[in-house]
Amino acid sequence: MSSFSPEVMSNPRAERVKAVARLANRKGREATGEFLVEGPQAVREALKAHLLDDNLLQAVYVVGGFLESHDEFAELLEQAQVPTRIVTGEVLHAMADTQTPQGILAVAAIAQPQLSEVLSSKPKLIAVLCRVQDPGNAGTVLRAADAAGADAVILTKGSVDIYNPKAVRSTVGSLFHLPVLNNIEFDHLIEAAKTTGSQVLAADGYGALNLDSLQDAAVLRAHHGGAEEDQWLEGQPVLEAPTLWLFGNEGQGLDEHEKQAADHAVAVPLYGVAESLNVGTAATVCLYASARAQHATKSS
Amino acid sequence: MSSFSPEVMSNPRAERVKAVARLANRKGREATGEFLVEGPQAVREALKAHLLDDNLLQAVYVVGGFLESHDEFAELLEQAQVPTRIVTGEVLHAMADTQTPQGILAVAAIAQPQLSEVLSSKPKLIAVLCRVQDPGNAGTVLRAADAAGADAVILTKGSVDIYNPKAVRSTVGSLFHLPVLNNIEFDHLIEAAKTTGSQVLAADGYGALNLDSLQDAAVLRAHHGGAEEDQWLEGQPVLEAPTLWLFGNEGQGLDEHEKQAADHAVAVPLYGVAESLNVGTAATVCLYASARAQHATKSS
Repeated sequence: MSSFSPEVMSNPRAERVKAVARLANRKGREATGEFLVEGPQAVREALKAHLLDDNLLQAVYVVGGFLESHDEFAELLEQAQVPTRIVTGEVLHAMADTQTPQGILAVAAIAQPQLSEVLSSKPKLIAVLCRVQDPGNAGTVLRAADAAGADAVILTKGSVDIYNPKAVRSTVGSLFHLPVLNNIEFDHLIEAAKTTGSQVLAADGYGALNLDSLQDAAVLRAHHGGAEEDQWLEGQPVLEAPTLWLFGNEGQGLDEHEKQAADHAVAVPLYGVAESLNVGTAATVCLYASARAQHATKSS
Repeated sequence: MSSFSPEVMSNPRAERVKAVARLANRKGREATGEFLVEGPQAVREALKAHLLDDNLLQAVYVVGGFLESHDEFAELLEQAQVPTRIVTGEVLHAMADTQTPQGILAVAAIAQPQLSEVLSSKPKLIAVLCRVQDPGNAGTVLRAADAAGADAVILTKGSVDIYNPKAVRSTVGSLFHLPVLNNIEFDHLIEAAKTTGSQVLAADGYGALNLDSLQDAAVLRAHHGGAEEDQWLEGQPVLEAPTLWLFGNEGQGLDEHEKQAADHAVAVPLYGVAESLNVGTAATVCLYASARAQHATKSS
């Protein structure tokens, strides 16, 4: 394992330790273009992603004994050839944002996929977080987008920085599974998306259209082809079509400007007493509805 | 507003302050049968629930000036007639579990709905959390269950205490919208549920059945009645039927015993690279699938 340095890092006040710790702050990330990946699950996913793109990981830090009790990591690290240092628990604690980094953390390079590239790859499904503030919510949506097979996740200017350690943790590795675009200007995004022919749907509790009806129509189309065109109305969005979903800020939802930019506003029905859906829940339901419709079409 | 005491509480070391703070711990809750409700959104929902069941709230504490800037609360408090005390910011901070209680918190009585009562009320949809550990996950499932119109949420023994302040916060008020049963013995639950005729579905990534197929079959049934019975197979579960969904521990999923207890294991399909779904995401998709099918039947 040539990428291992034999020396154990034991000084929590060393310059390198402080440099890693600074990645917990936006300023530190902007200065270096790097971010923190904490804990076994996230580091494992990052190592796997690194095998496909070896620009991703810059360094891995593990406490003594970790690799002995985690065979999988020893193998992955050898394959990935990422510079790895053994550190004391105190050093890992000083580097980490979380109180319990569980024995391992990594420093990764912030990927900067271009919007034009993402849009020119004929995406079928994109999740857009419009000014979503909470790192946990952003992580939930990213993870749901990953599960639904979305082609990208886009965060507009004013959203939480997805490379904030709390957000990274809450994506549980999904951050490494699909292109994520941070800090994108909303108007520019919509303009670019519309030239690709993608429809823009706003997830909006007060939307005129009901997601369930759109899903029913999609199922009927998939099962009966054009024979029952009367099952859905002219001018309604078709979930099978390439779609950019807009999800709004947790407090205020989408603002007027964002709603206006969408082709349609679609409500996820509320069957209970809840007054509104958490943005993570709404996004999960909407993205899965699209994925289901798109995959039914593909397979039939 | 007769329920107001004129005196401002200003001593953060007072016995009453300490007693409230102790509700952050399981021991404190068990000793008193009370729990903490923090922040405007959760207290608002609790006050509304208190109007329907005036055993719920024991006391409300607000910082000076809060009511002046939150008209809605002044009104709600007057209607609800809950003993209310003005406190200093320091006192509120000492009482609260969260660092920023946002000016208001309440002490509520832990409701203890009986399993037999819940099951005898002909529930259509119940979410069961099997040894779910993370308060945020429990909160997400509870909120999704509320949105999907579930009749109850049940946490089995070994799950997080839903009255832990972090869990309460993450339910964002949904805790007050539907019966929640804490610390229920799994075998007893299943036995009791089966006598009611409810089907038990296990959400399991490796389940033999695919949720999408079950949803498609439900849509086709709703739209074509019995005419296309060949669209679904004998012995497959019908999403419209009364259902108890089992959701597993975040690390291990459902264990063998829990899976064996279910009538069917159902997988939420993964369309992307994600290896598994977060329990909150899986529960959202499953509960919404049932709700959709059940409501389509009702309206047709």
